[in-house]
Amino acid sequence: MKTMDDLRNLFLQALQRETDYLKQELPSHLFAIINGYLQGGGKRLRPCLLLMCAQAVGGDVEKALPAAVAVEEFHTWTLIHDDVIDHDDFRRGNPTGHILGGRLGKEAWKLSDSIAADYGISAAILAGDSLQARASEKLFELKGFSQNTIFSLVFNMTGRLTQDLLAGEQLDVEMSHMSWDDITEETVMTMIDGKTGALLKYCAEAGAALGLDTPIEDCQTALQLGQFARNCGIAFQLQDDILGIYGEEAKLGKPIGSDIREGKRTLLACRALDKLSETDAALLRSILGRADITQDDIATVRQLMNGEPLTSVQNDAESYVQTALSNLKTALPASPCRDALHDFAMKMTKRVM
Amino acid sequence: MKTMDDLRNLFLQALQRETDYLKQELPSHLFAIINGYLQGGGKRLRPCLLLMCAQAVGGDVEKALPAAVAVEEFHTWTLIHDDVIDHDDFRRGNPTGHILGGRLGKEAWKLSDSIAADYGISAAILAGDSLQARASEKLFELKGFSQNTIFSLVFNMTGRLTQDLLAGEQLDVEMSHMSWDDITEETVMTMIDGKTGALLKYCAEAGAALGLDTPIEDCQTALQLGQFARNCGIAFQLQDDILGIYGEEAKLGKPIGSDIREGKRTLLACRALDKLSETDAALLRSILGRADITQDDIATVRQLMNGEPLTSVQNDAESYVQTALSNLKTALPASPCRDALHDFAMKMTKRVM
Repeated sequence: MKTMDDLRNLFLQALQRETDYLKQELPSHLFAIINGYLQGGGKRLRPCLLLMCAQAVGGDVEKALPAAVAVEEFHTWTLIHDDVIDHDDFRRGNPTGHILGGRLGKEAWKLSDSIAADYGISAAILAGDSLQARASEKLFELKGFSQNTIFSLVFNMTGRLTQDLLAGEQLDVEMSHMSWDDITEETVMTMIDGKTGALLKYCAEAGAALGLDTPIEDCQTALQLGQFARNCGIAFQLQDDILGIYGEEAKLGKPIGSDIREGKRTLLACRALDKLSETDAALLRSILGRADITQDDIATVRQLMNGEPLTSVQNDAESYVQTALSNLKTALPASPCRDALHDFAMKMTKRVM
Repeated sequence: MKTMDDLRNLFLQALQRETDYLKQELPSHLFAIINGYLQGGGKRLRPCLLLMCAQAVGGDVEKALPAAVAVEEFHTWTLIHDDVIDHDDFRRGNPTGHILGGRLGKEAWKLSDSIAADYGISAAILAGDSLQARASEKLFELKGFSQNTIFSLVFNMTGRLTQDLLAGEQLDVEMSHMSWDDITEETVMTMIDGKTGALLKYCAEAGAALGLDTPIEDCQTALQLGQFARNCGIAFQLQDDILGIYGEEAKLGKPIGSDIREGKRTLLACRALDKLSETDAALLRSILGRADITQDDIATVRQLMNGEPLTSVQNDAESYVQTALSNLKTALPASPCRDALHDFAMKMTKRVM
């Protein structure tokens, strides 16, 4: 059995071959933007999950590598466009696509700051578009599978996966403009399911479908592993939103209080506003989304969300983990590979436990 | 034989069914943006070309309808992102995607003008992304063809077509920042080939491949009809750039002089700068790309480009038309369907003749 580290290394080799290819094929600025993300590190959760699921059902992980590259590319194009939409300048310490694009334009043609910024956005839009298409095309490199299996991977990627993920993204943008009164827990959960759950689900499904050489739709094991991954993803996101309030800057990778400053729509915030007295809810609402919050404001938010709101969201996250583990047991008999997927889930959601 | 009007009507019915479906499936603002383009008229050249090619090789046009819808969707997502990149507010008299998105956001959440504009751009990016994926997914609705044929259509759309078109688009953006001295005729032609030629080529190839139920790569007729369509597209674009200087506002659909004001990189401009005396070239360069041009400036540009530059580009356009017609004769034996494709080419490029 290959460990997660083995699988990540296999993936990284395949990714290197892919970036060598993209460097030849793409306009140089689009390649630079894409490469900045692809080589930018990260935990490679999605390709590892895909390969672990392929292995867990007895498949040949080497044969599944093009799909592992495809899901990383898919994830990456959504990040490039997300960063444009959210006006984020950095990701994992590196400049985001539109920022890098602007710098390249400035160097190449001595553009003014504002024209360079505009060029950067154009280049990031086109880089994301290019990578979206490439992710689907990459699936056609899969060899040694029935056409129906490959069909199902392409069809699900260009269909359900993309639409669910983009609907989640759009809901996230819309919610940022909505008043708290109009935001329900259900809407928040739909957004999380789309933005975080959909791609993880697809990774597990695709890995198992390849391992068993069966279309996703016809493969109970794939569908169950998909639910496993989806529930892990939701648990991860609920926990991530808790850390956005209570976490330490060093571990978070973003400034303390940035979720508060943005007024990020989270289950924790919804639940606090719901459970608090009218006066306390009004106080919380007045701080969330304010650009000039102080350390005292952060302390106030932490205190207001403490107790029942915090505990109940922690319980929800824990319950998603338990459901995930139960999905895993339904999907697969006991084996070292199943244990590895269990560990993967624990690692991904460990901050919950 | 179905006429082009018959085929357009068949397509419009299929498009109506598609928009009914998209209305159910997509977030409402994304649907509104997409629908504004899909229902916004236009000549429907691409789906008609696809269906005419399917018919010309003896295929069943009804069976090819999902592909006709797919290419119109493909064209549309590129327009939505193009309009964001070019900051265009109107297309065919309708507000572009980001403008409509901004209005919808303003209505829904009473946003300020600047926040509404930003929301509009986000929504237009996501709408284009969603439609890009849908165009590929739509091809899986093709029924009654071998899997290899459908495979080839999806593979070529997500591969070669998208990358060629986006490389053309990126080149267009880059050239707008380059000095005239760095722009060669070759670069301009590569840009035109990508932005205009690639999709028309795909439409003809896909139509013939479906009509003969053969993968594009294995189908000489499809490849030759692809060259026919590509050469028509290049001729059309060369002529369109001439009209951008010499055309009348009513026929152009855009203000006279807008290409001059933008300093649009065209073959005509390249050739004029190349052929003119140093003094005249300097004068032309000083007008192209200036925001505050006068009627006199427009007259000066027209005069400077007149004579050899204009005639030689007209000759080039004519020669692309002749090559296209020769491609058509190689591809197909004489028939009423071939005559219809000949008429299509003449209509599309008639301003050249």
